[in-house]
Parts: sequence; structure tokens; C-alpha cells
Amino acid sequence: MSTVASKGERTRRTIVRRAADLASIGGLEAVTIGGLADGLGMSKSGLFAHFGSKEELQLAVVEEAAQTFVREVVVPARSAPRGIARVWALCDRSVSYFERQVFPGGCPMYTGSVEFKSRPGAVRDRIRELRDEWYSYLGHAIESAQELGELDRGVDARGLAFELDALALSANVHFQLFDDRSYFAAARNAMRQRLDVLRPGR
Amino acid sequence: MSTVASKGERTRRTIVRRAADLASIGGLEAVTIGGLADGLGMSKSGLFAHFGSKEELQLAVVEEAAQTFVREVVVPARSAPRGIARVWALCDRSVSYFERQVFPGGCPMYTGSVEFKSRPGAVRDRIRELRDEWYSYLGHAIESAQELGELDRGVDARGLAFELDALALSANVHFQLFDDRSYFAAARNAMRQRLDVLRPGR
Repeated sequence: MSTVASKGERTRRTIVRRAADLASIGGLEAVTIGGLADGLGMSKSGLFAHFGSKEELQLAVVEEAAQTFVREVVVPARSAPRGIARVWALCDRSVSYFERQVFPGGCPMYTGSVEFKSRPGAVRDRIRELRDEWYSYLGHAIESAQELGELDRGVDARGLAFELDALALSANVHFQLFDDRSYFAAARNAMRQRLDVLRPGR
Repeated sequence: MSTVASKGERTRRTIVRRAADLASIGGLEAVTIGGLADGLGMSKSGLFAHFGSKEELQLAVVEEAAQTFVREVVVPARSAPRGIARVWALCDRSVSYFERQVFPGGCPMYTGSVEFKSRPGAVRDRIRELRDEWYSYLGHAIESAQELGELDRGVDARGLAFELDALALSANVHFQLFDDRSYFAAARNAMRQRLDVLRPGR
């Protein structure tokens, strides 16, 4: 397989990346093929050659966000040892992902999960699968910490994953809304305290 | 002042309530004057007589959501005694507000805070004010509990308000996305554990 992307593939990537940046700011619905074509100096029909529908483009943006999240959060956390250290690395990286504004408005997948939570269709289905994968992944990291005796075994791993993720999501919403970076420290602080309380023998 | 609303006022309320229901599901941007007019069997120009622009309608929806939140969450919690009991009542009611689907998709103000977090303008400004008021209110309730010796004085009240609110917001997103009511119990459980840990003398 050639490692050199074709021109068509490069153009497609440029479109998706630009759409993902815009979706992180204004939501997936705010990205229109017309608006995107204007912004990229492309014709609408040229853009339609890559994405036949708005939904197809939205799904491509969601995949782009998911791959970016894996690259920026999941992969670096793997270098931390299994157990509480890896749980913490996942928490810390999920906050840092928003803090560094990998996408300017946060994450099209997170924003999209709020935007599409109640709208049946292919976009909601895919976001649901991806969010489920993330909870399973974080939940398994928590279970490993429990097996190693580093976290209270009585705690529901998926419930704790939900709690920790809620803090990262809200930190970004509040950072963006209030233009106040202190919410990232507040989220890390709350995560750390929550995990500390669950250390056995405390 | 007459307690009987004029016909114009009643029509306006019907429009706003309907728009708020739709916004709770699909977001503030998904509510269009044309779509709303069709759904209510009104003419577009008739609807324009009440709301001159989409932004005006969005602002009216945000006010409707804020008033509903006060009525459903803040007012009932006032019957709980000051201190930890009132903090808990506010937490519990904020979860119940989503659980009872006062608006079918959750809350246009919460959804709107994610949707408009990065979009400068009048809607974002108003949502920011309202969210700030809620944090101040919940923060004051926490401070009262601290003054009464019922919560650790070392904790930042606004930071704790942010944490508790994050759980209510995420519980709704996950309930809607996964069609799973257990997230409400998970949120209440996490809130209770967080407050329990902060009880002095524990």
C-alpha cells in the first residue's frame, strides 16, 4: 500500500479537518457543505464529490474526532503502568485534550453527543458506539486498578468512568463559555480527590 | 394588572413553549421560524409578528428554560432547611428535572450552553449570565452548609457547584443517548458520595 496519499485523499482530509474544527465550535449541524466550500475556496459540487450528503460529512467528522481522541488521549496514556497510574493518565489526558484545544471549540464528538443525544439516526448511533467504547476502555482501566488492589473493588467501574468523563466535558463547556481556564484545574482536582477517596486503606 | 393573558400573550407563550421543547431535543439552532410555524399551523408572518428574528426567539427560549429551572429546581429546594439538606435538595432536584423530562430532551439552557459555548453573541452572553447565577446560587447554598459546620470549609464552593452540576448535565446526555435511566442513579450516587466525603468529622 502506498504511503503517499492521493490528491483526492488529501483534499478529503483537508475538508474533514476543517469541518471538524468548525463542528467543535458551532456543532455538527452548523457545518454546511455550502459554507465549507466557501471557506475552502472550493465549489459546492467539488465538495459534493467527496461527501454526497451532510450526514456523510457529519459521520466523517465524528470519525476524525474519535481517531484524534485515541491519538491524543488513549495512546499516550498507554505508556503509564496499568492500574491507578493509567486511570489517572487517561483522566489527565482527557482534560489536556480540551485544554490544548486540539480542536478549537473542544471536541466534535463530545459536542455532538449533546447535540444528537435525542435525534435518532446514523450520527447518533455512531456517537453512541464511540462513547460506549470510551466508557468500556476507561472502565477496564478502572477494573485493572481494582484487581491490583489500588482502587476500592466495591465501586462500579462504568459508573466511575461516567463521573470522571462528566468532569472533563463540563470543564471544556465552562472554559469555552466563561473563557476561564481554571475549570481545567477544578476538573483535575475533583478527579484526583474522587480517586484518592477510593484508594483502599485510606 | 390583569391576570388574564391577552390572546397575543397566550399565542406567544405557546410558540415559546413549543420552541423550547424542540430546542431541548435538537438544540437552539435547529428551531427555525418556518419549521415552528408549520408545526403550530401558523403562518410564518404570523410568527414573525411575535419574534422578529431567530435570535429573539432563541433568547425567549433561554428565558423560558431559566424560569422553568427556577420553578422546578430552585423553588422546591427552598423548603429544605439551610445547610447540607438544601445542597442535597438542589442536587436531587436538578437530576429530577432531567429525569421527569420537564422538557423532552432535557433543558434548552443546558443544551444551549454546549451549543453556544464558543459562539460570541447575545445568546451566549445570556446563557453565560444564567449559568453564572446558578453557580452562585448553588455556591451560596454550599457556603451556608460550610458556615453551619456541615461541610468542609476548605472546599471551594464554586468548584464544588461545578462538579455537582457536571454530573446532572452528563446524566441527561447519557440518559438521552443510551436510553438508560440508570445514569440518574449514578449521578445521585456520585453527588451523595462527594458530599459525604466532605462532611466534617468523617
